[in-house]
This record gives sequence, structure tokens and C-alpha cells, in this order.
Amino acid sequence: MLSQMAKNLVPYTAGEQPRDRKYIKLNTNENPYPPSPSVQAVLRGADYAALRLYPDLDCTELRDEIAKKEGVKRENVFVGNGSDEVLAFAFAALFDKEKPVRFADVTYSFYPVYCALFGLSYQTVPLTQNFLLNRKELCGGGGIVIANPNAPTGLYENVSEFVGMNVPVIIDEAYIDFSRGQSLATAAANSQNAVVVKTFSKSYALAGMRCGYAVAGAEIIDGLNRVKNAFNSYSVNTVTQAAAMAALRDKEYFNGRIADVVRTRDAFCDTLNRLGYACAPSQTNFLLATVPDGNGEKAYRFLKENGVLVRWFNAPRLSDKLRITVGTDEEMDALASLLERREK
Amino acid sequence: MLSQMAKNLVPYTAGEQPRDRKYIKLNTNENPYPPSPSVQAVLRGADYAALRLYPDLDCTELRDEIAKKEGVKRENVFVGNGSDEVLAFAFAALFDKEKPVRFADVTYSFYPVYCALFGLSYQTVPLTQNFLLNRKELCGGGGIVIANPNAPTGLYENVSEFVGMNVPVIIDEAYIDFSRGQSLATAAANSQNAVVVKTFSKSYALAGMRCGYAVAGAEIIDGLNRVKNAFNSYSVNTVTQAAAMAALRDKEYFNGRIADVVRTRDAFCDTLNRLGYACAPSQTNFLLATVPDGNGEKAYRFLKENGVLVRWFNAPRLSDKLRITVGTDEEMDALASLLERREK
Repeated sequence: MLSQMAKNLVPYTAGEQPRDRKYIKLNTNENPYPPSPSVQAVLRGADYAALRLYPDLDCTELRDEIAKKEGVKRENVFVGNGSDEVLAFAFAALFDKEKPVRFADVTYSFYPVYCALFGLSYQTVPLTQNFLLNRKELCGGGGIVIANPNAPTGLYENVSEFVGMNVPVIIDEAYIDFSRGQSLATAAANSQNAVVVKTFSKSYALAGMRCGYAVAGAEIIDGLNRVKNAFNSYSVNTVTQAAAMAALRDKEYFNGRIADVVRTRDAFCDTLNRLGYACAPSQTNFLLATVPDGNGEKAYRFLKENGVLVRWFNAPRLSDKLRITVGTDEEMDALASLLERREK
Repeated sequence: MLSQMAKNLVPYTAGEQPRDRKYIKLNTNENPYPPSPSVQAVLRGADYAALRLYPDLDCTELRDEIAKKEGVKRENVFVGNGSDEVLAFAFAALFDKEKPVRFADVTYSFYPVYCALFGLSYQTVPLTQNFLLNRKELCGGGGIVIANPNAPTGLYENVSEFVGMNVPVIIDEAYIDFSRGQSLATAAANSQNAVVVKTFSKSYALAGMRCGYAVAGAEIIDGLNRVKNAFNSYSVNTVTQAAAMAALRDKEYFNGRIADVVRTRDAFCDTLNRLGYACAPSQTNFLLATVPDGNGEKAYRFLKENGVLVRWFNAPRLSDKLRITVGTDEEMDALASLLERREK
């Protein structure tokens, strides 16, 4: 009884969440630190009686707070139920069936899935040998999607030239807060063609609350609202809106935890290279390491058996690698010991 | 820069949420009573540190709790970010572009919007003069969508004959808990073609938390999961899952508040009829009243000016009516006084 679309759909595969035992969980790029303590204050102080009412469907206060952070206006901000939802809305709002959208062959593997869901066509453009964008080839289609920093490569590039082009461009900055690069949010707000998508899941440690946002010119924001209001008018609940605001306001805590993750990441990158797991410097909260014997699956299974979950992609150009989320120093030490044992 | 689809989209219009003044809010069918006090306990006791982790994307515990309530198995239950999201997924999972889906001319006005979003075609089938289903005409298309009890009519009908047909059928039971009718959830779980959709927003007073669910056979549940995992893997956040479970478990509180709403509703139905606002007995938490002079818009504006928000639909067969959510006794008394003043 399913639709042809549903039957043909190859859904995105999220990182596993096994319930059989406790793992050191380094497979879904979660933040190793809790969110700001003020999130706890929000939960404790929440007016549970008000939950009988629908949330503010325009997320007005939260958008004001985001606008302040990004240096844009409220009308340049759209909020959704995680950046995955925001990305889905952006694909539907910006791309036409007839004009294939283009993105890299190695990037967030959800992009082709959105295309399938909305009946859009796409073309993948191979990254260079060093996993950098092939900029020329990305142009010429009906739109462009770029993750920057890219996942799972962890590499940041200056992509400001894509803002102001005459095709719609989605710039997915899920990991930008861990990079030394500049967000293009403000530039997008002042453009006609670009939308920058960000998330509270990674740098704000709020994966469990589901909140993401987009910054763009007013026309694109209007398009996102039109699609949202054709799907689920109230997609961000009351508690999530309050939690995200509290996290945003605690800048000191935010900056401190970012610094912690970056320090651990850079040290572990050195460790990986020392152990023969070749790894380029990352600008995200994960590292992409090439397994010495080229068998990523075997290494992934070895680590899982020994209590550490990392992500292995059964995909071209990636099957010899592991994507390792940056955890606490203690977690990374445990992983280093395991890898050391394995390579002896 | 928007897609043709987004440009052509006529989104759903949710009930207004004006911020200029405080209203007696009877326009979005919210529950006048707070959710179970155990929801507060959940918020207070929530492990905020765990919010750094993604939610359980399978909503395992919550699905077990729902399965217990509905007398079905876990694999017959799907949970989403409000029943609007569940409905959107169901449209995408069940209906094909080439075979128009059929639903009543007067029903939840989101249904045609889902069709536009996913590029589906549809045919509306006029309700009878008494606002009942034209059952024969609903068949013969590529699928059927029925709200039961229907909105905004408030009428319940036995629609069990649609379970077991050879076309996919969505039965939207958002208001079933306020009716004397029987839910078809168990029947749907044992069928191949039917999916029953329910919500925590109305009877559980959790509109602010966003949670809805579907009960169906395993194949349809699989289809819903495929679509969800092509849109947003983690669509129901950690706190929402816990709040919904707590609300479900407090059966005594639930039954008490349902009884309160039903009592107020039936009394106010009599009041409306006495005042000349013709109104059929409702099986929901709202009443559909025909304005004596036939000018629904004018009556809606009069009430809004006087601090009471109700819903008026600028639509065929409805423009002479008001949809009035059942509030507390005090709120309904205030509304009755206003209407009385108006008709003098």
C-alpha cells in the first residue's frame, strides 16, 4: 500500500544508538560536554501549564536572539526542528525538479535523500584528491549545496564567492563554530541567493532538543516559511525555543566548551597521525582518519567490540576511513590506547 | 530564487496568535486545562546534561507506552513531531501522484496543502447537507483521508468500513478522545490499508510539546519511517518523548479533564442554540455554530474586539459559522454574555 516514492526511497542512515551495552559514543558528532547550565534552569522553571497552548509558530523571541548573534534582522532568520528539518525545507523551497542541484560526492549523505523525498534531481561533483571543492564544476546546475566545514572530511574552505551568484545556494554550517573560518550568515542575509543553515546540536550541545536555523534574505526566509506552513505550522516546541535562547545567551560557557573541544581535537589529530591513522587537521568536532591497512570496516568493528563507537561509511572514497567524534580527553585517551594495541 | 512549488504553494493558515493583548483564546482547539502534573515532574527531573545526545530516534519507550494504551504492538506505532508531521509523512508514504486522493470538501484544511507540498493530486467530495460523509463518492480514487470526528463540523461517524479496503486510508482521530465513538487504531494495526493518526495536543493538553502518533500495520509504519528518515531522523526530542509518556500514564487525570471538557461543551451547545447560534451536538472539544444573521466574519470581529478569539473560515459552506473551542466554564460564560449582548 506504499507510494512508489516511499518504496524507492533510500533513507538516510543515522549513527547507530545500540541499547545492548554502554559505549564510548564517538559516532554522531555530539558534544562531549553538557549544554549551558542555564538550559537546566529553563527546564526547571518551565511553566508546564502553558504547554496546553501551541508554541509561538514564528519563534519570535528566539529569532530575535539569533538575529542579534548573527548581526542580522529578525526577518532574515528561520527556525526549525533541527537543521535537518531546515535543510529539508530549503531543498523544497529553492530547487526545481527540472534543474539538477549539484553537491560534492563526499559530503553530508542526507542531501541526495532530500532530493528523493521531493522528487528533485541532482548531480554529484567529485571533490579534488585532497577532498577540496571542485568549484567550477559545482556551478552550471539549478542550485548548489555546500557543507562548510565539510562532513565527513572536516575541512573548511572560503566559499564566499558562492554568495551573490544567480543560482540558489545552501551553505550548511553545522560545524562552523569549531572552525577558524568565517560564517557567511551575514553575507547570506544581504544576498538574494544564499541561505546559511546552522544547528544547536553540535556546538551548543543541544542535539536532544532539536533546533536549527537558517539565515538568508527575506525572500528565501519567506519560502522556508511557506514550506514549513505546508508541512507543520508549529515545528519547534515551546521548551526547545526557551532552551535554545538560554544556550545562546550564555556566551562564556559556549566559548569555553568550544575551546575545550578544539584543544582535544588538535591533540588527538597528532595522536592519530603518530599511530599511522593519517588525518588532516580538522575544523569541526570530528576527525577523519585513514586506517593503516585500508580496512575501515574491520577497524570500526574492532573498536565497537572494545566499547568505542565511531562512524564508518560504506561509500566510495571513505571505506578506508573512520569518522571519529571528538569526546573528552579521557575518552580520546581510551580510544588511543585501543588503536595503539591494534597497531602493535 | 524560490522553486516553482514554493511559489505556487498556498500554505495552511494556523489560528492567529496575536501578541497585542490578552484574549480568551478559543480559536485553536487547545485544552483549557493544563497537562497532567506529572509532565511538570518530567521537566523538573529532566537530565539536562543528556540533552547533548540525540534523542532515541525510534521513540522506543514511548511507542511501547502507546502500544499498551492502544492494545497493539510496538511495530504498529509511529511517533512524530505533532500529528501534523505524522499526517505529512502519511501523505508522502501512501499516495501516488497519478491517483488523486479523495477527502471531504469540509474537513481539516491542511489536507490539500500536504498534496501541494508533495506534488499529489486530490479530489474533494462534498459532505451531505447535514455535513456527513458521502461514502460512495470517497471511494474510487487512489486513497482516502477522513477526519473522524470531523473538523470543523465536530461530527463523529462510524467509518470502520474503510478499514480493509484496497486503497490506503488515513483516519485522522485528533479529536476521538472527546467523542463517544470507538477509535479504529486497533483495527488499523490489523489491516493492510488503514492508518489512524492521533495527537497529544488536544486531549492530553500538550500542544506546546508537539507529539503525535500513527497506528497501522507494519508495512505502513515502515513507510512512515522511511519518509521520516528521508526528512529528519530525530524529529521528536528527548523532553517531548518523556512528557508524552508521563501524560499517557496519568489515566485518571486524563479521564477527569476529558469529562470536564465534555460537560462544558454539551452545556455550551445548549446555550448557543438558545441564543440562536444553531449548533449540532459535538463529539470534539469545539463547537461549530451558525451565526443568526449568517455573517460569520462580522461575529468573529465583534468577539475579537471584545477580547474573545474564535475561528472563522473564509470558505464555502463555512463562512456563516464560527468554530468555538471549548474553554473553561468561566470562559464560556464570558462568551455567552457577549453573544447575548450582541443578539439583543
